Amino acid sequence: MVNIVLLGCGGNVPTPTRNLSSLFIDYRGRGILIDCGEGTQVSMKMAKTGFKNIDLICITHLHADHTIGIIGLLSSMGNSDRRDPVTIIGPNGIRNLIKASLVINDGVPFELRVIENPIGKMCIYDDNLKDIEIDVLPLEHSKECLGYSFYFKRQRKFNREKAEANEVPKFLWNNLQKNMTYFYNNRYFTPEMVLGEERNGIKLSFITDTRPIDSIPEFIKGSDLFVCEGMYGDDMDISKAVKNKHMTFRESATLAKRGGVKKLLLTHFSPSLTDPEEFIENASSVFANTIIGENRLELVLSYPEEKSD
Amino acid sequence: MVNIVLLGCGGNVPTPTRNLSSLFIDYRGRGILIDCGEGTQVSMKMAKTGFKNIDLICITHLHADHTIGIIGLLSSMGNSDRRDPVTIIGPNGIRNLIKASLVINDGVPFELRVIENPIGKMCIYDDNLKDIEIDVLPLEHSKECLGYSFYFKRQRKFNREKAEANEVPKFLWNNLQKNMTYFYNNRYFTPEMVLGEERNGIKLSFITDTRPIDSIPEFIKGSDLFVCEGMYGDDMDISKAVKNKHMTFRESATLAKRGGVKKLLLTHFSPSLTDPEEFIENASSVFANTIIGENRLELVLSYPEEKSD
Repeated sequence: MVNIVLLGCGGNVPTPTRNLSSLFIDYRGRGILIDCGEGTQVSMKMAKTGFKNIDLICITHLHADHTIGIIGLLSSMGNSDRRDPVTIIGPNGIRNLIKASLVINDGVPFELRVIENPIGKMCIYDDNLKDIEIDVLPLEHSKECLGYSFYFKRQRKFNREKAEANEVPKFLWNNLQKNMTYFYNNRYFTPEMVLGEERNGIKLSFITDTRPIDSIPEFIKGSDLFVCEGMYGDDMDISKAVKNKHMTFRESATLAKRGGVKKLLLTHFSPSLTDPEEFIENASSVFANTIIGENRLELVLSYPEEKSD
Repeated sequence: MVNIVLLGCGGNVPTPTRNLSSLFIDYRGRGILIDCGEGTQVSMKMAKTGFKNIDLICITHLHADHTIGIIGLLSSMGNSDRRDPVTIIGPNGIRNLIKASLVINDGVPFELRVIENPIGKMCIYDDNLKDIEIDVLPLEHSKECLGYSFYFKRQRKFNREKAEANEVPKFLWNNLQKNMTYFYNNRYFTPEMVLGEERNGIKLSFITDTRPIDSIPEFIKGSDLFVCEGMYGDDMDISKAVKNKHMTFRESATLAKRGGVKKLLLTHFSPSLTDPEEFIENASSVFANTIIGENRLELVLSYPEEKSD
């Protein structure tokens, strides 16, 4: 199970009614944050996400509405007794931005591992992140911008019949499930001997800010949740979308459909778009399972077969 | 007349209910901002202060709760078509902080005139600021910190009898009141020839974060409004105040009394101080005219004799 909180749904500038677009992901009690505009830490307090358990911060691009909040967030993480390293991923320039941030907040009491512009698939060798496959896609915006997708693996079930058939001593069952390997009584015992089949995980993709380029549908393919910018609701705003390198609801929904995702969550609304619900038809007529984002909207993403367990 | 808005009244970290301590001053339609923590621009939007007319930003010290908001604020000022220079005053290090801010927000479309650690009295030679005398005092905090006082001059009245006695031609009256000097008909005509007596202006002082050092009462002397930190309400928190280099309500009120100010506005409350009103007695028993700050509290400061005009 993966829980998400859309910490904000606004684009460009923070407003009294809309926090800036940012997503908090809770996976096994650990936190991942995507984008962090000014005021994100206050939204996190309201959503009670906590600060200490954030292991990974992904920044899509270096426009201020996606970055400024990181300065105060890192301070607040330090104040919350965070001492373990934190990984930060972002486009070219992210190192400079983090360096500048540390001038402003006077440094933090934990190591920052900055990964700059890591296009493609990767895993991060951190105990809390190792079961997540991360994919990074270059997007098309007025500034170098990255899309992210996350595949959260599901633990394989213990298979008693298999364990017994392999004559695995009972006292090893528990630790073999935890992916440990043993040599006992002149035999090797591996996790494979006690675990059932691979099970489908959860895929979540996050795309903002960009034009709807052709590489996106393949990248988001089969996502359980596709979080996507919807800067403009009105189809008539297409010329603004083209000019400012953003998308209309219809364009985002078309990507959702082409990518065969399960659910589309629209976010990053223009400050001029006062009531996004007014335009939902422009998305849902293309892709039915569309949700309009709002501050601190929470969703639970279940593993595909979880309901029948 | 000077209008002020206390944009926030919280210390240390922004919270869902309290913006960080920051003061907006409106003098003749122009803006001065003192301190700018994360989220200040949102509070400015709520208070409808506008962004374009801010000519001066004063920073007390370089702790993040007083500075982070400046990055987004400068961007928003640029987006509001600000093109005239903006003056920023702060302690040693303010230049570096502004440099780092410009890395993060990608620069601004106006000139920044940074004045670093200008202890003592000064005027700024900017048309919009020239009638303000600014005084800067070093304070005693865990980081180098500055107190500010502002003396807003009041325009002298036109004195018809004096103008006639000095035989000033009527068509010059208006411009002489605007401090222009003329040579006409082989004679000099100066503002002095048409203006009445000097009139008392308005003094406003702003002191946070600091211990109550002996130089403060003289510095704030006679202020119409003394805005002062009140980190702790409870007298029992004096040891925390000493340790963290802050003040209790009673200490702030004692400064107000010693300085003979007219009104004390407490701000910069500790996040642990959930209801400052509970402790107002600790201040008002020492200095009666004490107000507890709250988000976007507005006050109008009138010139001393204005009521009898």
